[in-house]
Order: sequence, then structure tokens, then C-alpha cells
Amino acid sequence: MGDLTLSAEKLVKGVLQGNRRDLARLISLIEDEDPSADEALSSLYKHTGKSLIVGVTGPPGSGKSTLVTRITAEYRRREKTVGIICVDPSSPFTGGALLGDRIRMQEHSLDKDVYVRSMGTRGHLGGLSRHTSDAVRVVDAFGKDIIIVETVGAGQSEVEIIEVAHTVIVADVPGAGDDIQAIKAGIMEIADIFVVNKSDLAGADKKVTEINAMLDIDQNMGAWRPPVLLTNARTGEGIEELVDKIGEHHTYLTESGDFAERGLKRSKDELEQLMEYKLTLELLKKLRGTSEYEEAIQKISERKDDPYSVAERLIARFLTDQRE
Amino acid sequence: MGDLTLSAEKLVKGVLQGNRRDLARLISLIEDEDPSADEALSSLYKHTGKSLIVGVTGPPGSGKSTLVTRITAEYRRREKTVGIICVDPSSPFTGGALLGDRIRMQEHSLDKDVYVRSMGTRGHLGGLSRHTSDAVRVVDAFGKDIIIVETVGAGQSEVEIIEVAHTVIVADVPGAGDDIQAIKAGIMEIADIFVVNKSDLAGADKKVTEINAMLDIDQNMGAWRPPVLLTNARTGEGIEELVDKIGEHHTYLTESGDFAERGLKRSKDELEQLMEYKLTLELLKKLRGTSEYEEAIQKISERKDDPYSVAERLIARFLTDQRE
Repeated sequence: MGDLTLSAEKLVKGVLQGNRRDLARLISLIEDEDPSADEALSSLYKHTGKSLIVGVTGPPGSGKSTLVTRITAEYRRREKTVGIICVDPSSPFTGGALLGDRIRMQEHSLDKDVYVRSMGTRGHLGGLSRHTSDAVRVVDAFGKDIIIVETVGAGQSEVEIIEVAHTVIVADVPGAGDDIQAIKAGIMEIADIFVVNKSDLAGADKKVTEINAMLDIDQNMGAWRPPVLLTNARTGEGIEELVDKIGEHHTYLTESGDFAERGLKRSKDELEQLMEYKLTLELLKKLRGTSEYEEAIQKISERKDDPYSVAERLIARFLTDQRE
Repeated sequence: MGDLTLSAEKLVKGVLQGNRRDLARLISLIEDEDPSADEALSSLYKHTGKSLIVGVTGPPGSGKSTLVTRITAEYRRREKTVGIICVDPSSPFTGGALLGDRIRMQEHSLDKDVYVRSMGTRGHLGGLSRHTSDAVRVVDAFGKDIIIVETVGAGQSEVEIIEVAHTVIVADVPGAGDDIQAIKAGIMEIADIFVVNKSDLAGADKKVTEINAMLDIDQNMGAWRPPVLLTNARTGEGIEELVDKIGEHHTYLTESGDFAERGLKRSKDELEQLMEYKLTLELLKKLRGTSEYEEAIQKISERKDDPYSVAERLIARFLTDQRE
């Protein structure tokens, strides 16, 4: 434990001094659910809250990575430093994110003011959104002005991931009848800005009209009506306007008080996620590997007992055992 | 509480007697996380384990719903009863699944040996996969021979949902360069049978070849090599063969011992999911609404405290309080 603490302390110092290798190491420790990561996160926390966090999501093929590359270039032109976190929740098995993302981001790989990191699913207990939120925090403490989180839409886990963002961009492309359905079904409600990318394709204007029509009938919209922008990430068309809109949204959040409110909600969600994870871990540490636990599972699978009663019983015992 | 117990008992009896209204009511109670649902599930458990559970997943536009309708018709021709559960994890906000699914399934709506149910996201704490697994169990106890679970691929929550299935069918369509990437990234590992649907479209054979090529280099494949079938759900082409393959896979599972092994793993996963949920609920019941808790969250959002330390402290206190 002495060693762990030492290493956490060293990493924290390194991250705060802008050491990229320490930053990368700490994010790896987070993914590995190493105990020293928690210590480091705990002491880095007070150095966070300075970055503007931008989420970019959308269906596969909507050109998200190219879009992120262009947005980054525009922020660099405006002399902002940028962190990029590419999340690939669709890969719970391979334990790593798509190589493609890294390759596409290569344009910025020699720029020391851009930090790029891919994250896949490791560990368990819904780890990815917790890991992503922790990684964003570390990049925030590291000092990047802008953090872009890119993830494939539109499942529930993606929505959870993107909730760390202050401003969420939902990207879509012209055509494909099912697309509009996909947006309707899932990510419409979380979009602060819509982007119809690949504006050179037929049907781009029609798509913009469709999204605006959906927004017209949205009952839950607040004071911010999400703008629908046309971009062509390949040529860079519309990117400047997009970055301007992100700024406008940020101003809106600050002035309306939404910024503080989102921060409070985020703190609550994060605290509860952490507690769920840690408390369950305590319980499972006691149970796993004991022959009694194995027998209970065996009985359930043979239908001699049911999981609902067994869960109640094991939890009651766990809580009682704390008396000793 | 007396009323609740009474109603749970009544529902259990109704479900076991084949009352569709009681079946529907119980699934609604599950979605509402009503306490009486747990009681009912607990006593229904010993009547489960008889259905063959088939998962159908794939990207939007792959014709999953039509495929499910056709598979159902083929099973009905073979005099099997069928339950269908359509899951829409992409909609964490609307609180209900897509109307479209219900409409497409109308073909079977007058057949009393087919039960169709749509499920969306309600509640919290990763509820959807737990609710789906519970609903499948209830339909199992209700006595359907085959239960088909349909969900949109390929996020992590979808993967969790589909894990309840004995046989997983991954559907795809010809064309769209990104598709193969989507399959690669997420759901390749969970497929027991691949289906290239819309076989009349150009590129169908090429897609079959591509999937087979991926399978050729798969290092983790067991004794069952997933077949890659061509179907046209609109015309019914290939559906009979598909249903035959499901049967072959079932035979394989039984003879290889995988069936029992999957059952054991599923029991364990389910028990742990349940315990995670119930234990966290106990903790949150004590915390939520107390001014101390609100203040802790406020402090976190102001960076005067960090969520990692607060989580540790609140959990330690919760466990200590059990002594009183």
C-alpha cells in the first residue's frame, strides 16, 4: 500500500505539471480499476472544473472522427488546448477501442497541445461510463481548455457517457431512412447542437428540415433551441460556425444558471455511481470464491432456489456481519 | 403490504393459468419496479427454464422486426407457441418502446399462442437489462415454447440484454461499408448465427463472404462455428433454414454441456445484478432527501470535497449504522 500511495502521489504531481506520460499512465490505472487511481482522482479533484467539455455522438458512418479532428483544428487556430477522448462502448470484448480512431486523429499527434486517448470496455459493473468520466476529470486537471468526448450513438450506455459533457453535438448524415428514426428514438433529447455532416451528399437540406420539424414538436425543450448546422468535415465547411455555436451554448449555460445546475446533477450522479460500485465490490469480495456462494448459484440454476430470495438473504447477512 | 402480497399471489396464479392480462400486468409491475413484482418473480422462478430463448439483434435497418415476424410464423407452422419481447434501449427518455415494433408484429396479434410485448427504459440503475431478463422469465413461466428477444445492436447494454438468450442471431444487410465495422466492433463475439437479410439487394453474397472471412480469423471460436445464412424476410426466403439452424444450435448446446454452463453463468450474473441493485437501493433510501446528503453533493460540485472520499465515507457510515 505504501508503494501504491507513493505512485499515486507521483502521478498526481506529474499530471499537474503537464507530464503526458503520467497522464496516460493514470488513465490506464483508471481502466484497470487499480486502487491507486482512486487516490490520485481524489487529490486531483480540486484542480478540475476548468475545461469546457464537448460531447460528439451519432450513428456509425456520420463522420464523427473527422468532425472531431476539424473541431480540434479550429480550437487550435483559436489558441485553445484540446483533449480528445474516443469512447468505444460497442466493444465489451476486445478490451480496447478501435484502432481507426487513433489513426484518424494522427493529424494532431505531433501537436503537444492536443492529447488523444481511446477508451474501450474493461472490467465490469458498467465501468465504461465511470472510467470515461474519471478520464475526463484527469484531462481537466491536466489543464486542457477543451475536452472532446466522442462516442458512437445511441444506446443507453452512450447516453450515460455523454452526460459528462457541457455541450452535446449529435451528428447525422443525409439519406438512410432509418437514421431519423434512430435519432428520434435515442439521442434527440440530449442534443444541444445538431450537425448534418457530409453536406455535399444529396438530401442534406431535407435532413436539416426534418430535424427542425422534430424540434418544432418537442414539448420538453428549454430556453435553448438546438441549432441544426450543415457541415462537411472533409472540406472543413461549417466548422467555424459550429465552434462559434459551442461558445454560444456555453454562454447560454452560464447566464441561465444551467451550468451550475448541470454541475450539481453531475456531482450527484457521479457520487451515486461511485457508491454503487464500491458498495457492491465490498459485498462481492466477501462472497466470491466461497463454497457457500457457489452452492447458492448452483441451486438457482437448478431452480431449487430463486435469485430474488437469495439476493435478499445474502444482502441481509452482509449487513448483519458488519456488527462483528 | 398485505394488499401487495395478495396481488402478487393473484398475478402468479393468473400467469401460471395462462391469463394474458395478468402476464401483461406483471411485466408492467416489473418495469415500474413495484415491490410486488419481486414477490411474484420469486414464486414463479421454479416454473421457469422450459422456454428456448432466441435473441435477435443487428443495426437499425437490418429488418429485424420483419425477421422476427417470419421466424414466429415458421415456429407457429411447427406448432410451437411464441413470446416476443421487443427491447428498445435507445430510448431512455420516452419511457416506452417504438410504436413501429408493435405495428409490425400485428400479423400475430390475433393469434392467442403468440404474446408480444415491447419494453423501453424506465427507472434507473441500469434497469432495462434486469427488466428484460425478468420479463423473459415471466413469459417462460407463462409457458411459451419459444421466446424471441429483439433488440437494436450494438452497444454494451444491448449485449447485456441479449445475454439472456440461448441462441443469438445477428442480422445484417448488404452494402454500407461501415456495417462490417459495426459488427466487428461489437456483436461478432455474441453471434451464434449470422443472417444477411434482404438477400435481393446487391452485395448480399459479398457480405456473406466478408462475415465468413472474419470468422476464419476468429481466435476465440469454440466448437460451434456460427453459420452465415441469407434470408429475405419480406418474401420468407431462408426462414425455414434459419429456424432449423436454431434447432441445431440448441442440440449442440445441450450435447456439449454449454447449455448447463450458460445456465450457471446466467444465474451468477443475475444474482449479482440483483444484489447490486438492492444493496444500492438500501443505501440510497437512507441518504436521499437528507440535508446532509444534499450538502455533501453541493460541496462536491463546489470542489470543496471530492466524490471519491465522500463515497468512501458514506459507505463506511452506512455499514457502521447497521450495528444500531
